[in-house]
Amino acid sequence: MSQQAVPDPTVSRRSNPPRRVLIVGGVAGGASCAARLRRLDESVEIAVFDRGPFVSFANCGLPYYVGNVIEDEGALLVASPEMFHQRFNIEVYTDTEVTAIDRSTRVISVRDLRSGASRSERYDALVLSPGAAPIRPPLPGVDLAGVFAIRNIPDSRRIRSWISDRGATTAVVVGGGFIGLEMVENLVHRGLAVTVLEKLPQVMPPLDPEMAALIKEHLATNGVTLHLGDGLARIDENPGGGLTVVAEHGARLPADLVILAIGVRPEIALARDAGLAIGSRGGIVVDAQMRTPDPNIWAVGDGIEVPDVLTGQETVLPLAGPASREGRVAAESIAGRATRFRGVQATAVVGVLGLTVASTGASEKGLRRAGVTNFEKVYLHPGHHAAYYPGARPIHLKLLFSKPDGRILGAQAVGREGVEKRIDVIATAIQFSGTVHDLAAAELCYAPQFGAAKDPVNLAGMLAENVLNGDMPAADWLALGRGDELLLDVREPDEFAAGHIPNAVNLPLSQLRDRHAELPKNRDIWISCGVGQRAYYATRFLTQHGYRAWNLSGGYATYTAFRDAGLTT
Amino acid sequence: MSQQAVPDPTVSRRSNPPRRVLIVGGVAGGASCAARLRRLDESVEIAVFDRGPFVSFANCGLPYYVGNVIEDEGALLVASPEMFHQRFNIEVYTDTEVTAIDRSTRVISVRDLRSGASRSERYDALVLSPGAAPIRPPLPGVDLAGVFAIRNIPDSRRIRSWISDRGATTAVVVGGGFIGLEMVENLVHRGLAVTVLEKLPQVMPPLDPEMAALIKEHLATNGVTLHLGDGLARIDENPGGGLTVVAEHGARLPADLVILAIGVRPEIALARDAGLAIGSRGGIVVDAQMRTPDPNIWAVGDGIEVPDVLTGQETVLPLAGPASREGRVAAESIAGRATRFRGVQATAVVGVLGLTVASTGASEKGLRRAGVTNFEKVYLHPGHHAAYYPGARPIHLKLLFSKPDGRILGAQAVGREGVEKRIDVIATAIQFSGTVHDLAAAELCYAPQFGAAKDPVNLAGMLAENVLNGDMPAADWLALGRGDELLLDVREPDEFAAGHIPNAVNLPLSQLRDRHAELPKNRDIWISCGVGQRAYYATRFLTQHGYRAWNLSGGYATYTAFRDAGLTT
Repeated sequence: MSQQAVPDPTVSRRSNPPRRVLIVGGVAGGASCAARLRRLDESVEIAVFDRGPFVSFANCGLPYYVGNVIEDEGALLVASPEMFHQRFNIEVYTDTEVTAIDRSTRVISVRDLRSGASRSERYDALVLSPGAAPIRPPLPGVDLAGVFAIRNIPDSRRIRSWISDRGATTAVVVGGGFIGLEMVENLVHRGLAVTVLEKLPQVMPPLDPEMAALIKEHLATNGVTLHLGDGLARIDENPGGGLTVVAEHGARLPADLVILAIGVRPEIALARDAGLAIGSRGGIVVDAQMRTPDPNIWAVGDGIEVPDVLTGQETVLPLAGPASREGRVAAESIAGRATRFRGVQATAVVGVLGLTVASTGASEKGLRRAGVTNFEKVYLHPGHHAAYYPGARPIHLKLLFSKPDGRILGAQAVGREGVEKRIDVIATAIQFSGTVHDLAAAELCYAPQFGAAKDPVNLAGMLAENVLNGDMPAADWLALGRGDELLLDVREPDEFAAGHIPNAVNLPLSQLRDRHAELPKNRDIWISCGVGQRAYYATRFLTQHGYRAWNLSGGYATYTAFRDAGLTT
Repeated sequence: MSQQAVPDPTVSRRSNPPRRVLIVGGVAGGASCAARLRRLDESVEIAVFDRGPFVSFANCGLPYYVGNVIEDEGALLVASPEMFHQRFNIEVYTDTEVTAIDRSTRVISVRDLRSGASRSERYDALVLSPGAAPIRPPLPGVDLAGVFAIRNIPDSRRIRSWISDRGATTAVVVGGGFIGLEMVENLVHRGLAVTVLEKLPQVMPPLDPEMAALIKEHLATNGVTLHLGDGLARIDENPGGGLTVVAEHGARLPADLVILAIGVRPEIALARDAGLAIGSRGGIVVDAQMRTPDPNIWAVGDGIEVPDVLTGQETVLPLAGPASREGRVAAESIAGRATRFRGVQATAVVGVLGLTVASTGASEKGLRRAGVTNFEKVYLHPGHHAAYYPGARPIHLKLLFSKPDGRILGAQAVGREGVEKRIDVIATAIQFSGTVHDLAAAELCYAPQFGAAKDPVNLAGMLAENVLNGDMPAADWLALGRGDELLLDVREPDEFAAGHIPNAVNLPLSQLRDRHAELPKNRDIWISCGVGQRAYYATRFLTQHGYRAWNLSGGYATYTAFRDAGLTT
C-alpha cells in the first residue's frame, strides 16, 4: 500500500473524503463496514486486518459446528479474502494483528503473525471492530487441556477434536447464558452428559427468574444436570485422566471437557492504549455515527458501548444484528452520509433442545436495576396457534409496560413454536415506542395453523390494558401468602385436585354466579385459574358485585414458574 | 325477557347506560361483543340471536374439518349457549332469526326457526353481526346436489358426508382465493384430485400476479389442476352420476363435487330494510366506535365497511381478527368507553400444501386501482434463516413503499417457513406508519435456526433504502425487452447456462472489475443475477464507474415469477 498525502483536516469530510480506510477486525461489524463502504465509494482504498485465520465467518454458528449440526466448516465462511479482493477490491490481511495506533500521525502498527514481521500502515479513517473475548476467570485449572472457550473456528475445531479423539462422554458448561445453553444443546446432540454450573440461581440471566424456571424444567427433563447458584472455584486434573470441576460450595463435577461460557468482555486494549475513551460499561465510546471522540476513528461491534433505547443508558450488547448495522452506519459516516444508529433494545433468541427462548427490551430485574418502578406486568400462556387446530403448544409470555402511559418496556417468551415471532412483533412495536394499546389493536396473520383471531400479541396487549384501566387489578406473586388475602382458585374441582397454590380455596367459575355469596366482601380475594382467563372473568364479576378482587396474572402455570424459581412456596 | 322503561334519549349514555342489549349474530364479532360487554357491565341484560344451530364456532376451521385435519366437530365449538349462560349470564337463542328491526320503537322481530313462532324483543342497544354469505352466482346448476359453499358447520358436515358416502375422487373448486385454496389443500389431503377454476389469470387475487405465480407453480407440482382466466358458465349433471363444470370458454371439468369459493358478500338485508346506511362497497356503514348512524345500533364483523388505514378508503374485509376487535370496540362503546377502531390493513395468511402465503397492506394493483402511482417496490428471496445453518428455505418477498417518504405501503411473501413472521413484523411497522428505514433498523431475533444477522425484514428495508436514495435505480420488469437496454446477467457461466432472461449477456460479477470496459457507457444496462445481491453489487460498481446501470430487483427468481405469470416472455 502506498503512502498518501495527509488530507487537510480543516476541509470538510464530505468534500474531501478519506482516501485510505483501515478496518481492524474482519468479522461481523468490520466485514459489514468494509463491504458497505465499497458499495458507497469505489474510489477509497480499503484494507481489513484480522488476527485470526479467517475473515467474515459465522461466529453465531460455532456451537452448531461443535454439535456437528453444521458438518462442513466451509459453511461457516461467509466470505474469503479472495472474494473480498475480487468482488470488492478490498485487501484482507488475516493472521495479522494491529498492535498500536498512533493517532497523531494516523498510523497503525501491524504484525504479521505468521512471519513475525511488523510494519506501519497509514490511515485517513480507522474503524475498530475488536469484538469481545470470552471471560477466563483467573482460577486454578482454567488453562488445563480440555478447558475451552468458544470464539472462533479454531476453538471449535479443538473442541470437536477433543470430543472425538478422546471419546468424551461428559461435559461441564460453566455459565448458563445464551452461549452456554447453545453449547449444552450441541453437546447433548453429540451424546454427551452435560452439567451446567451457573453462579446465579437461574439459567439465562437476561430473563427474569420465573421465566428462566421454564427453561430449567425443560433442561432437567432432557437429562441436563443443573448446578445453579454456585460458582466455579477451580478445575482439577484427575490422576486417571479427565477433569473435575470444583464449585465454590464444594461440589465436584466430573467432566471430559469443560466449556467456559461465563460471558464476554469488550476487547479494548488497542483502543485504550491509544487513549480512546472507554465507558463505564467497559466498551469503546462512540457517537450515533459510531465515531469515537477522535474524528478519524470509528468503532463498531461487540467492543463498543451503545445506548439502550428503553433506559437511555449505555450498554454493551454482543449481538450480530446490531454489529452488522453498526458497521453499516460507520461506513455511511465515513462516506459522508448522516445515518444514525438508533441504539439497541436487546432482542435475542436461543434454541434449547426444542425449546425457544426469546426476549426484547428490558427485563423486570433490569428495570429495577435502572431504578424504574412505575411499571406493571402480565403473564399469559396462549397456544401458538388456534386451540381448535391440532398441535397448539403454549407460549409462556411476560409483558412489561409503563404504568403512566402503557408504553411497552419489554417482553420474554418461552415455548416451542411461534415464540420468536411474537417477540419480533413486540420488538417492532418497541422500536416505535408503542404501547400495550397498539399490541391489542395489532392486525396480524391469522389462519388456524399460524395464529388466532386474538393473537398472543393481541392478548398480551388486552390483558395489559385491563391492568392499566383498572379492570383487572394485578396481585403481586411475590407477596403470595404474606398477607391475609383469600386465595381463590376458580378452576374445576378435578383441576384443583391435581395441584393448586397452597391454602387456596376452590370455587369454580362455573358455579361462581350461584355461590359468590360464600365469599367475603371485607377481605382481598386473589384469584387464579389455569392460565389466567377464567380468573379474569371471575375478577370482573366479583369486582362488579362489590368484592375486593385481584387477579394472579397467568394463573397456576405462572405459579409453578415462580415456585420452580424458588420465589414462592 | 321483561320489558323495561325506555330511557330518555336526552340523558347521556354514559350516565344512563342501556339496560337491554341484543346482538344479532353469535359468531366472531357478535360473540366477542357479548362477552366483552358482560365483563364491562354486570348489570346490563344481554341476549344473542343466531340463525344457525351453533354460536361462537371457529369458522376459520371449517375447511380443515372438511379435510379431517380437525377430526372432531366439537373442537370447532368455542362456546355453547350453556357456557354463555353459566359463565356470562348471556342468553343465546340459536336457530332463531331476526327478521326485522323497528328503529322507532326499538323492537326487533324474532322467529324461532324450529317452532316457526315469532315474537318481538325490545332493545336499548342493538348490535348487528350478520357476517357475509358466500356468493352463489345465478348460473345453471349451482343449486344441484353436490355443489357446495362453506360457511358453517352444517355446510361442512354435508361436504364431509358427500365425500365419504359417494367415495368422491374429483372436485372442482370455483375460485382461487383464500377459502378456495384452503379447500384445495383439504380436499387434496382427503385424496381427491382437485381442479381450480378461477376467472382471474392468477390465484390469490389479493396478491400481485407475479407473487401469485409462485403459488401456481406449487399447486401444479402438487398435482392440482389449474384452470385460470376462465369463469364458471354452468354446472351439468352427468347422466351416469357426477357433475360437469362448464367454464365460460367451453372447458368441461368433471367433478364428484363442486365447491363455490367465489367470494362473500355482506349480509345487509336486515340492516338495509331497517333503513340503515349501506356504503358503496356494499357493507353496513359505521363510525370508529362501530356505531351506525342510528345511535342505538352498532354493527361489527364481515357485514360492515371499515376504513383501510393505508388508502383511507372504506373496504369490506371478511377476516376474523378485525371482527373480534370490532366486537370488542362496540362493547366498549355501549359501555360508555371511547375506544376507537383503527381501521384495517388486510393482514392475512393462508397455508397451501406446505407453502405459506401472507400479505399485509396494499398490493401494487390495489395501489394503482386507488390511483396511487408515486411508489416503488423491491423483490428479494432471502433464506428463512442463516444460510450456513442447514435447511434454509427461501422467502419470496415483495415490499411496496412510498417514493416521497419511504412509508411502507404493503408486503407480500411466499415460502415455506418464517413467512408469516416477516409479514407480521412488517404489518406492525405499517400500524405505526413506519418507513423502509425503520425496517432496515429493526432489531429482530437472530440465532442461526431462526433468522439472520440481517433478517429478511432488514434486507427488504435496506434494499428499499437503496432504491429511495438512488444507490440502486430499479428497472421495470414489465418494460423488459421493450427498450434498447443491454440485459446483463452477472451470475457465473454455469448458472447462466442453466437458464437466463432472453437476450441477456453474461459477464460474471467475479470478472466485472477486470472486464467492465467491454460494456457500453452510452446505453442503459439492466442488471440481474440469481436473487438480486450480486446484481446490486454490480450496479453499485458500474454506476460509480460512469455506466448507466439499473437493477432488475430480485434477479432471475423474480424473472421466472413474472414469466410464469405471463407478464413477460
